[in-house]
Amino acid sequence: MSDEQHMRAALSLAARGLGSTWPNPSVGCVIVRDGRVVGRGNTRPGGRPHAETEALRAAGGRARGATAYVTLEPCCHWGRTPPCTDALIAAGVGRVVVALRDPDPRVDGIGLKRLRDAGIAVEVGLLEPEARRVNEGFVKRLSRGLPMVTLKLATTLDGRIATRAGESQWITGPGARRLAHALRGAHDAVMAGSGTVLADDPELTCRLPGYAGVPTVRVVADARLRTPLAARLFNSEAPAWIATAPGHDPASMAALEQRGAELIDVPRAPGGGLEPRALLHALAARGITRLMVEGGAVLGASLMRAGLVDRLAWFAAPSLMGGDGLPGLASLGVDRLAQMPRLAVTARRPAGDAWLVEADVVPGEPAPA
Amino acid sequence: MSDEQHMRAALSLAARGLGSTWPNPSVGCVIVRDGRVVGRGNTRPGGRPHAETEALRAAGGRARGATAYVTLEPCCHWGRTPPCTDALIAAGVGRVVVALRDPDPRVDGIGLKRLRDAGIAVEVGLLEPEARRVNEGFVKRLSRGLPMVTLKLATTLDGRIATRAGESQWITGPGARRLAHALRGAHDAVMAGSGTVLADDPELTCRLPGYAGVPTVRVVADARLRTPLAARLFNSEAPAWIATAPGHDPASMAALEQRGAELIDVPRAPGGGLEPRALLHALAARGITRLMVEGGAVLGASLMRAGLVDRLAWFAAPSLMGGDGLPGLASLGVDRLAQMPRLAVTARRPAGDAWLVEADVVPGEPAPA
Repeated sequence: MSDEQHMRAALSLAARGLGSTWPNPSVGCVIVRDGRVVGRGNTRPGGRPHAETEALRAAGGRARGATAYVTLEPCCHWGRTPPCTDALIAAGVGRVVVALRDPDPRVDGIGLKRLRDAGIAVEVGLLEPEARRVNEGFVKRLSRGLPMVTLKLATTLDGRIATRAGESQWITGPGARRLAHALRGAHDAVMAGSGTVLADDPELTCRLPGYAGVPTVRVVADARLRTPLAARLFNSEAPAWIATAPGHDPASMAALEQRGAELIDVPRAPGGGLEPRALLHALAARGITRLMVEGGAVLGASLMRAGLVDRLAWFAAPSLMGGDGLPGLASLGVDRLAQMPRLAVTARRPAGDAWLVEADVVPGEPAPA
Repeated sequence: MSDEQHMRAALSLAARGLGSTWPNPSVGCVIVRDGRVVGRGNTRPGGRPHAETEALRAAGGRARGATAYVTLEPCCHWGRTPPCTDALIAAGVGRVVVALRDPDPRVDGIGLKRLRDAGIAVEVGLLEPEARRVNEGFVKRLSRGLPMVTLKLATTLDGRIATRAGESQWITGPGARRLAHALRGAHDAVMAGSGTVLADDPELTCRLPGYAGVPTVRVVADARLRTPLAARLFNSEAPAWIATAPGHDPASMAALEQRGAELIDVPRAPGGGLEPRALLHALAARGITRLMVEGGAVLGASLMRAGLVDRLAWFAAPSLMGGDGLPGLASLGVDRLAQMPRLAVTARRPAGDAWLVEADVVPGEPAPA
């Protein structure tokens, strides 16, 4: 097995923890001695123990002289856990291969230096693009104060989510819904507009076995504070946050808090909805690194127009609704084709009888309002 | 090689001729003697010579005692060519394997009987579903007086063909256009609405090497007779038919005929456009067995609503336009999801940076107007 193969294994471990380690990154670590894997670990749900701790525990005395493959620079500061650099040094690891330097200013090269100072051979940059992708939410939150955003759409092949008469459930089948739940589990939070909550009354939980660790936060973008107290959202233990504009009736706010909601103040945009960038800043400030937006059409479009969507997860059902159906994505204000967001498709796969298209979003030229 | 493999080869030969044999079917024939292929043939452009004639010519004396695999029951009547049954008998073929009985009332089992009466071993039904698919246009025209209809769409991923400001060229790239031209070549005729002709001024020709045999007929659905005399359509040698409602100014009609157009009278639908079923009957009456509809959104939707679309060829570009873009398919009048046309996807393949989804269309429950 080559260095690259071991690092790929570490990246796979890191990917497993996505959605359950926020605000911490999800890290993978593989420890190899004399060509044999002696320890594996990834960041545990809630963000600790760290991947290195887990892998070193598994390796025990066999870590001495071994090589550790870590997807992110080991931490060197005391947080809720002791520094991983110290643990690697104490275990007598001989070589550390790191995919991505940690952009956290408390680490950012200091971890690497500490390892080198202790006489450990350190290499950085193996499969860095892949590591950057796994860590996209963590890096974006640290560098820009924003979560990585995945926009999820589930539409007919011609991009519609409801008939002109309003019938919408179910466009896609159980296969697509299972995959959509798995996607929820890989995000720290899912968000829907209050219109979607009123129309569909979704739970927005990840109802799949194996995702029980850290419940996904549910966020309602609700400028007008329309979320009903009876919303099914409140039936789950998972956190329910309601992002709303200031100035609502304190009694209504208290009643929602009584139901378990946590209210987040976000300024209004000129159109009356929540200012999209401020909304995402507020979520990042609370630790969210990976956010999946599940609708409605207006919320998704407002984030897309503001250039705030990083990825698209589009479930396309094998049906057609025609031009009078409700589009899954509201107006983007595109006049010229150059203003369209472009998609770099990363995967296409079957999802029951629908297809899931996953893509990175490349914003177009700025469009008028 | 098994019987089935030889028949598959014959079906591949048949598929090659699609679009160039109308009103005749495109047939494939493989002649095998002592396990070796001694002759191959498919219906030549224009519909003759027939596949059997071609294959027998290639086989020569080696046809004696051989097995002939034919995708459609050999003809037994004098048309523009002598009957293929007689040619097979004269060549001394020992066994004939037929995929599909010919629904043409002039043949319909009589060809098989004539072969059997001559002492030839005859088997029918090998790969019949595949043969029915290759012959779909021919069979539909004979049985229902309608052509097989493929609706082609080229849209953004969210199903849009033009921005709100009207910019539309080019949503998909050269890879998709090449494939679209190949699709044109496999149809007898392509049709567009006059709105598309006015907006895009397309030639609607198949500009690919290797498709020079029989030019694809171009049809404009033009109830109001708006096709301009300067349309680029008229720059090509390929036939240009204009389907229009009765009662137009004879001078305008004569001027279009002067430019090379052939005018076809079709009654109006209550909404003012051409009655979709009558339109297709008129094309089938002129011999069209396979029709590709290329736009616009209203023409495609009117055929879809009438349950007249058999297949969809949808080119999806990796871009998003949003809800204010022009949809590729106009209103289908769907109120309930059960009224949606469903798609049985037959192929998904890359087309440049776009994707081509090919599907059979299963009409939904009747929708209100």
